[in-house]
Amino acid sequence: MLATMIYGPRDIRLENVDDLVLASGTGEGGEPASGRDAIVRIVASCVCGSDLWPYRGVTETDEPRAIGHEFVGVVEQIGTAVSRVAVGDFVISPFYDCDMTCANCLNGVSSSCVDSNWWGRLDREGFRTGGAQAEHIRVPHADGTLVVVPAPVDEALVPHLLALSDVMATGHHAAVSASVGPDTTVAVVGDGAVGLCAVIAAKRLGATRIVMMSRHPDRQALALRFGATDLVELRGDDGVTAIKALFDDIGPDAVLECVGTAESMDQAIRSVRPGGMVGYVGVPHGGAELPIRTLFSSNVGVNGGVAPVRNYIEELLPDVLDGTIEPGLVFDCELPLANVVEAYTAMDERRAIKVLLRP
Amino acid sequence: MLATMIYGPRDIRLENVDDLVLASGTGEGGEPASGRDAIVRIVASCVCGSDLWPYRGVTETDEPRAIGHEFVGVVEQIGTAVSRVAVGDFVISPFYDCDMTCANCLNGVSSSCVDSNWWGRLDREGFRTGGAQAEHIRVPHADGTLVVVPAPVDEALVPHLLALSDVMATGHHAAVSASVGPDTTVAVVGDGAVGLCAVIAAKRLGATRIVMMSRHPDRQALALRFGATDLVELRGDDGVTAIKALFDDIGPDAVLECVGTAESMDQAIRSVRPGGMVGYVGVPHGGAELPIRTLFSSNVGVNGGVAPVRNYIEELLPDVLDGTIEPGLVFDCELPLANVVEAYTAMDERRAIKVLLRP
Repeated sequence: MLATMIYGPRDIRLENVDDLVLASGTGEGGEPASGRDAIVRIVASCVCGSDLWPYRGVTETDEPRAIGHEFVGVVEQIGTAVSRVAVGDFVISPFYDCDMTCANCLNGVSSSCVDSNWWGRLDREGFRTGGAQAEHIRVPHADGTLVVVPAPVDEALVPHLLALSDVMATGHHAAVSASVGPDTTVAVVGDGAVGLCAVIAAKRLGATRIVMMSRHPDRQALALRFGATDLVELRGDDGVTAIKALFDDIGPDAVLECVGTAESMDQAIRSVRPGGMVGYVGVPHGGAELPIRTLFSSNVGVNGGVAPVRNYIEELLPDVLDGTIEPGLVFDCELPLANVVEAYTAMDERRAIKVLLRP
Repeated sequence: MLATMIYGPRDIRLENVDDLVLASGTGEGGEPASGRDAIVRIVASCVCGSDLWPYRGVTETDEPRAIGHEFVGVVEQIGTAVSRVAVGDFVISPFYDCDMTCANCLNGVSSSCVDSNWWGRLDREGFRTGGAQAEHIRVPHADGTLVVVPAPVDEALVPHLLALSDVMATGHHAAVSASVGPDTTVAVVGDGAVGLCAVIAAKRLGATRIVMMSRHPDRQALALRFGATDLVELRGDDGVTAIKALFDDIGPDAVLECVGTAESMDQAIRSVRPGGMVGYVGVPHGGAELPIRTLFSSNVGVNGGVAPVRNYIEELLPDVLDGTIEPGLVFDCELPLANVVEAYTAMDERRAIKVLLRP
């Protein structure tokens, strides 16, 4: 099968690799196969902003590995212990594997599943999972991880369903983490796919005023379409002043940080009103920790992290199915898997917000 | 009048100073008096854990100043623009002055009042306020700051009413900031007056299990009386393990950080479960910032700050008046104001949890 591998900075290769198979026998860790897995034929996957960190060399790639962690697809094989998912089901996967039975999953934090696995690596039992920028993938906990979409699945919905795999549910997590609800005022830092989806999420949860910080006309237009009420192009001190000026000079109730740099977090913390909340989902990069004295003196809370996407998909799915939300609009470029290298280049050069890949 | 002054590390003096008077004419900043102030005869005040920071030289005392910020008392004079408070009223004050009309006060964050003042310094108009470890104090925004206790006031309630000035409402803020509610599981880091009051607050808000981290038998006993269900004497890694062991090895929903050191915050962050919340009210001391990667990877939120005590007093007051809560039990030592130096020594040496002072 074809699979995308990363070898190091700017070294992405589409390769022919061994087909994935259901686990059997004993894994490399010495654990016997559990029979809880499934093989999924990937219908669509994509490139994530976080894939750009190893692509750009910001994080190290210590050995070649399969890459890609967002996908929708059709179940082709299931293990002997799988009961909730059947061959032929169209499924959405979160960007990680989880059992949905442990205490963390039941607490709504499946991204901290005590038995979780990450795509592209061996699972805890020592069996290959594969990455999502490929033709097939192996899901260790099929019953926990996969959400079945009721058949028949409208082809036009595929991008929107794929967005539930990560960016839409992650934007939702930023909003939930910041306690966005009816009448909340919001600013969003970051006009990437997650930031744009955070606008959708904030509007969906009842925010009355949503400021998008963006300098790019195409992203500004999409933000407005998604429900943003104001745009701010300024950054840094000027950005703080501009945002506060929109809210009685004290700032909005919530700021959603969807980038992950020290600068974006600083922007968020200094823009929110006293007593407000920063919801953050940008994977932290750069050396800065959170400035406790600034937070303490203004009662600004910080909440968020690796989005527990699996816990949100079922809540968001009906709104995608009936067209209430259209998060798939963040895919402004679609390429065949054969062109995966171009997909990375387009994302890296910010020529595309997010690239959808079809095997 | 007698007033307590701090001159520097371990240099506390009770002095005869000029009587405080209602503002009139023009203040040192050139602002005219607003007529919104009141002179309060102090009935009881106390020494705060945060008073120990300048006492110990951890924070600098750049010039001699009046000290003390918690008090209850009787209104003796009011300015021409005061309408909610009358001469003779028994009042509780938060540990700061606020107008209760600005956007931050109305948002529930009166500790960020845009027109706030701090005791012991000149107010924004340039008039003296005085400190609370004294015979009298001047309150710049009497209508905003002071909460009137319905007469007649039972003398036995004075310690409990005084606790609303800071420690009880601050412990409540830790619990509110950590979203403690019915069935929440809680651990409290810090067995000082605020930590003990945080136990009261957590129980009052519906927490079902409350672990107090404490090594002192007297404080342990008080924590149990206030509603703690478990005690943990270990600290550091062993403390984390001991707390997690009480909650399925993942930790409690909320940890209330009531100390303010780098070690106590680290204890809190590492003890809470994934997706849980640290509510913190300990004034941050020491150089450590918040570890964003740890927070991000486990979805642990951090929320809190300078407690907006004024916004909580009216909610908590009925429970004090009817005896439902007895936060004044944290005062395990009562001294006349004349013995204020001994009050600081007893607190510094941890011979007393908290010392109540009577002018």
